[in-house]
Amino acid sequence: MAKQAAIIGGGVIGGGWAARFLLAGWDVAVFDPDPEAERKLSEVLENARASLPALSDMTMPKEGTLRLVGTMSEAVSGADWIQESVPERLELKRKVYQQIQSHSRPGTVIGSSTSGFKPSELKGCATRPEEIVVTHPFNPVYLLPLVELVPGETPAELIESAKETLRAIGMHPLHVRKEIDAHIADRFLEAVWREALWLVKDGIATTEEIDDAIRMGFGLRWGQMGLFETYRIAGGEAGMKHFLEQFGPCLTWPWTKLMDVPEYNEELVDLIAGQSDAQSGQYSIRELERIRDSNLVGFLRVLKDRNWGAGKVLRDHDDARREDAVEEAAAEAAPLELAHLQVLPGWIDYNGHMTESRYLYACSETTDAFMRLIGADMAYVEAGHSYYSVETHMMNMGEAKLGDRLLGTLQVLEADAKKMHVFVRILRDGEAVATLEQILVHVDSAAGRACPARPEIMDRLRPIAEAHKALPRPQAAGRFTGQRREK
Amino acid sequence: MAKQAAIIGGGVIGGGWAARFLLAGWDVAVFDPDPEAERKLSEVLENARASLPALSDMTMPKEGTLRLVGTMSEAVSGADWIQESVPERLELKRKVYQQIQSHSRPGTVIGSSTSGFKPSELKGCATRPEEIVVTHPFNPVYLLPLVELVPGETPAELIESAKETLRAIGMHPLHVRKEIDAHIADRFLEAVWREALWLVKDGIATTEEIDDAIRMGFGLRWGQMGLFETYRIAGGEAGMKHFLEQFGPCLTWPWTKLMDVPEYNEELVDLIAGQSDAQSGQYSIRELERIRDSNLVGFLRVLKDRNWGAGKVLRDHDDARREDAVEEAAAEAAPLELAHLQVLPGWIDYNGHMTESRYLYACSETTDAFMRLIGADMAYVEAGHSYYSVETHMMNMGEAKLGDRLLGTLQVLEADAKKMHVFVRILRDGEAVATLEQILVHVDSAAGRACPARPEIMDRLRPIAEAHKALPRPQAAGRFTGQRREK
Repeated sequence: MAKQAAIIGGGVIGGGWAARFLLAGWDVAVFDPDPEAERKLSEVLENARASLPALSDMTMPKEGTLRLVGTMSEAVSGADWIQESVPERLELKRKVYQQIQSHSRPGTVIGSSTSGFKPSELKGCATRPEEIVVTHPFNPVYLLPLVELVPGETPAELIESAKETLRAIGMHPLHVRKEIDAHIADRFLEAVWREALWLVKDGIATTEEIDDAIRMGFGLRWGQMGLFETYRIAGGEAGMKHFLEQFGPCLTWPWTKLMDVPEYNEELVDLIAGQSDAQSGQYSIRELERIRDSNLVGFLRVLKDRNWGAGKVLRDHDDARREDAVEEAAAEAAPLELAHLQVLPGWIDYNGHMTESRYLYACSETTDAFMRLIGADMAYVEAGHSYYSVETHMMNMGEAKLGDRLLGTLQVLEADAKKMHVFVRILRDGEAVATLEQILVHVDSAAGRACPARPEIMDRLRPIAEAHKALPRPQAAGRFTGQRREK
Repeated sequence: MAKQAAIIGGGVIGGGWAARFLLAGWDVAVFDPDPEAERKLSEVLENARASLPALSDMTMPKEGTLRLVGTMSEAVSGADWIQESVPERLELKRKVYQQIQSHSRPGTVIGSSTSGFKPSELKGCATRPEEIVVTHPFNPVYLLPLVELVPGETPAELIESAKETLRAIGMHPLHVRKEIDAHIADRFLEAVWREALWLVKDGIATTEEIDDAIRMGFGLRWGQMGLFETYRIAGGEAGMKHFLEQFGPCLTWPWTKLMDVPEYNEELVDLIAGQSDAQSGQYSIRELERIRDSNLVGFLRVLKDRNWGAGKVLRDHDDARREDAVEEAAAEAAPLELAHLQVLPGWIDYNGHMTESRYLYACSETTDAFMRLIGADMAYVEAGHSYYSVETHMMNMGEAKLGDRLLGTLQVLEADAKKMHVFVRILRDGEAVATLEQILVHVDSAAGRACPARPEIMDRLRPIAEAHKALPRPQAAGRFTGQRREK
């Protein structure tokens, strides 16, 4: 039988919890007196269903059943986990626990989504205070793995079983070993919030400028390494101590309006440097740099795919470079270097080789980049014109492996107003691992027939095609599948 | 002729600037008295060359030439941009500007990488103070787009030309309109740093726990939206004012040790809510949620591909779910729902349709997930066994479009110890847009020949294959290419 979760409070946070449990196969009962609860809940669920399964490479469990119930007792009786997400008022929360515990099974964890209260404050005169723990999630609860787990007078077995449940619904329980106001993460959020309010109030920056200051820079770093691992790299070969010595003195400078600082001394330096060694010492600084860079390239490409934030900067930069790039391309008889790819763990098959589809992918990344270069981009397509590929021949000559860097180049064999004939090479260390020969026809999309390309496209395509006439014709061009290879 | 950049100070930051300029086609002269400068510089350059081109979909310009020069005058004479990244000592920086300006061309921007000093402090007794601006970048300089541009007594044309140069090398200049210690972003970093030192000092959390508190939660959010846009969403339909009213009172609570807070009043609320409307008002909260979720799924998949940070949590979760997933799969005669994909802007060709290679990609994501499900994963391959696909037949029946959600399902047609025969459907709203029939043979990779799969694989594969015997055989199974379709 499916496990049962009781969700007390069905707002954005409670709804996110409900979605996590439901999509993990739990049955969920929600209690929320808000007359709009059902609509709000279904909106969060819709978002979760549209995103969470994309993170999984296993079959998803069968979704549990959702009930919106009229009383708290109905929600919690028989529940295996109870999650409280009512408004941040201590008296209200205490009253809720009283009611919960008069109907819940003894030994059931009651997790509170509280941002700020400590278990010692939450328990009040609870019948079974040991069941009350903080399980503080982050919005959107159905996607972000972090949950801060702050136990109260909770026995070790109950803490372990709480961690197991949280992991089973895909979360990362961070065990906060000493209770403190606002736990850990929200203390940072609050510090940044306070500083940000000063900046807005003092007219230094607008909310938009502040957001850009975060998401175009350190925000990207923090999605993959935190504060200390990032600074460990910044310290370089000289290490964490060097970083601390360099930036220690700033603690007393007015680099924030928040001046209540800890004393900076050797003891603190040793404590931090030692913890940093334990955390990241298994990697050299060079290794950490490469891990960081690979993660950042991944994030930036995600944003570029979506034309958002830092990714929009990359797109605008490409657009601004177009005319120069065309001019450079026409100035030299050389295949154009258009796509730079690295073979990622997710790209290789179970033989350790790059999967078949990724060769074709690498080729089409190259031809797509060429289309953008000559201006046959989205806007051009939306205006009713496009290139259709009508014939393709592909050859595989090598096996790309995990971590290999691949370069996609393109040579124009022939081009006129109605069609172009191109040759793509996917190179590793200058040697082709795959080639693709393709004929593309320019079409009027609405009419569905070939037509001449617009003059601005031809103005870019023609000089490149001219320059490429000086290039030797690739041996593989014009081959048919199965043709005997020349020595 | 290529433009010339002078880099004064060639450490991690100066080296990052050198890489940005070089890869953007500038010639670069570096002055750094450190005898190790050449080695350090070449390491940063190697990192940059391995990552920055992957962000571009245009041809990269021809890389400029790099000279390490012996005097500052040699570096700056003839330079079109001068970037100073010497240690954070005001007197040193002022002396450097004196030397620079006695050899540089009047009207040349001197950008300082300073984290903390203001232009009014930097200028000292400079000959041409108007040329000295802060251009504060973020490490790694060659990947992160943010640069804080703080002008001093700089004329408007010089500010504009500085912005143009920064954009031309792929950066996002954030114009800081009023100078302030540590500019904008580093004030947040300093606030978090101060709070983090307290947490370590007080024994609340280790550096590793703090990093996890960041990168498993809000750090992911901040890579794509900043503080205010994120909270705008948290406020939900009730908007930014509602959020502020909810969390305003916390300003006076001990949610951080940093208690020097601005006064919370109606004026501040109106100021922030108004700026937030101007920033994000063109999107509804529902739209912002979907943009956020799509970005987060992208980030999390990037990390999962690299088995790092929050992505490792996802992988561990998949692994933990394997046995349950196999059991569920064997309990029902239904194709397994294995891959959940959304068609992204980067996946579509210039006809607005999903590119050919992505259909094959969607199919191989589905079979790969099936391999992981039955335990034929990386570790299995490393131990010397694998499945090779020996024959494939694919059909395209529909055009997937931007934003479409696709589901990859897999049906086992036959399976024994040496081979399996599977049928994959790529569905949109329950209708197949593509199907793939494939035969895979189990091999001993070292010997290079077929051999029986290991018992633990067969224990998972057999019950699923048994269950799937009850499924109707797909019409397309057994088709040859070009075969007439039945009605």
